[in-house]
Amino acid sequence: MSGPVIILVRPQMGENIGMTARAMANFGLRRLRIVAPRDGWPPAEAALQAAAGASALVTGAEVFPTVEAAAADLTRLFATTARERGQAKPVLTPDLAMAEAARHSGGAGGVGILFGPERTGLENDEVSLADTVMTFPVDPGFASLNLAQAVLLVAYEWRRASGAAAAPFELPQESGPARRETVFAFFAFLEAELDRVDYYSRPERKTIIMRNFRNILHRMNLSEQDVRSLRGVIDALINGGRRRRSRNGDGG
Amino acid sequence: MSGPVIILVRPQMGENIGMTARAMANFGLRRLRIVAPRDGWPPAEAALQAAAGASALVTGAEVFPTVEAAAADLTRLFATTARERGQAKPVLTPDLAMAEAARHSGGAGGVGILFGPERTGLENDEVSLADTVMTFPVDPGFASLNLAQAVLLVAYEWRRASGAAAAPFELPQESGPARRETVFAFFAFLEAELDRVDYYSRPERKTIIMRNFRNILHRMNLSEQDVRSLRGVIDALINGGRRRRSRNGDGG
Repeated sequence: MSGPVIILVRPQMGENIGMTARAMANFGLRRLRIVAPRDGWPPAEAALQAAAGASALVTGAEVFPTVEAAAADLTRLFATTARERGQAKPVLTPDLAMAEAARHSGGAGGVGILFGPERTGLENDEVSLADTVMTFPVDPGFASLNLAQAVLLVAYEWRRASGAAAAPFELPQESGPARRETVFAFFAFLEAELDRVDYYSRPERKTIIMRNFRNILHRMNLSEQDVRSLRGVIDALINGGRRRRSRNGDGG
Repeated sequence: MSGPVIILVRPQMGENIGMTARAMANFGLRRLRIVAPRDGWPPAEAALQAAAGASALVTGAEVFPTVEAAAADLTRLFATTARERGQAKPVLTPDLAMAEAARHSGGAGGVGILFGPERTGLENDEVSLADTVMTFPVDPGFASLNLAQAVLLVAYEWRRASGAAAAPFELPQESGPARRETVFAFFAFLEAELDRVDYYSRPERKTIIMRNFRNILHRMNLSEQDVRSLRGVIDALINGGRRRRSRNGDGG
């Protein structure tokens, strides 16, 4: 399933074109179109530098004179706007918009997403070419989202909607979770050692103290290796204490 | 419910501190802490310019010498990493991490999120101070996320997790959805007009043609105003045709 086409309409800053390419590449989008870039084409060196490794998306971008031309071969078009435009069309946040885009892209459809110039956003006539408005759930007191930041959120939601949003790595599990007999044996060892040093000031408190302590240990979700490590640490502390006491001549 | 504290550890570029502040403000985060900024403090003018209206977050940031000091008063600490560190702790994507942060912040807890320096990320010893690793579901072939972009995704997911992620505006509904009698009357008008101009080449096709056409109209989810507008357009086309015909002297 190929991702949506990102269409920057009359972008002003080369850096933002580059940062857009980088944001797209972060989440696996590849198709960039530019409508009437303010500073012409190809863009200044700053755009390629800002792309930081995704400069092939910039140099491979397709350039068009109008929104109509850039969207001609697509079958679904979203217009990104920061404010209400009084146009009677559905308004979706990026998560819902990209869920819809993923459904649409499952068929023969091609999805495009329009982003307006940095300062002004899309013109109302450009918005009217789109099927759906997309907007961001920003704090209304600080709604001005940088162009590449807006693209990033869309690319991120596309990756989630297309089912590729697992973390790239997981909790390393070298030994697997501890079998309960390993955990219970560790409880017994610890309880015996605490008995040996008369830790329970009053015998009737032993049950409560040990129950609390068991629950602390349960919350650790210990692996087999974790239990071995903990037991090693406690052994070392006990034996270190014995050695110290025997060095000081007070028995062991 | 106050949002998590964003903690930039040894940030290198003033612009990134500013862009981080802007990204935080976009999604309602307010608390920024900086550990040992490379270029000292206060930051260069470029940081305030990049903050674009959120410079108060930069000037109000708290600066600390170490991660331990910056996190001392918090009760839950996430470490952001781009790669696996071989540390046996849970690994969450930003959506799950912020859902957990929102649950935690409901009580007396304070949540912090560590972000490492641009070039190297957090040191392993710094990661080991955190309860949980957070990482981004990036394309493994292009995993290098800009610092402020990483903060943006976290702020966005915080806003979603804390239940404030509705779109700031919705589809404008000036007249409300059309009552079915309005829609049926429009069907009848259209069918009668098409009858009048002998649109249905063969009478037996009328049923099929009109059924298809009704379904096209249903898919428009017309409002009361939409029906009035469409009817006005069709009236104008009919009457314009009549006027043109009468001007050309062929009746009307």
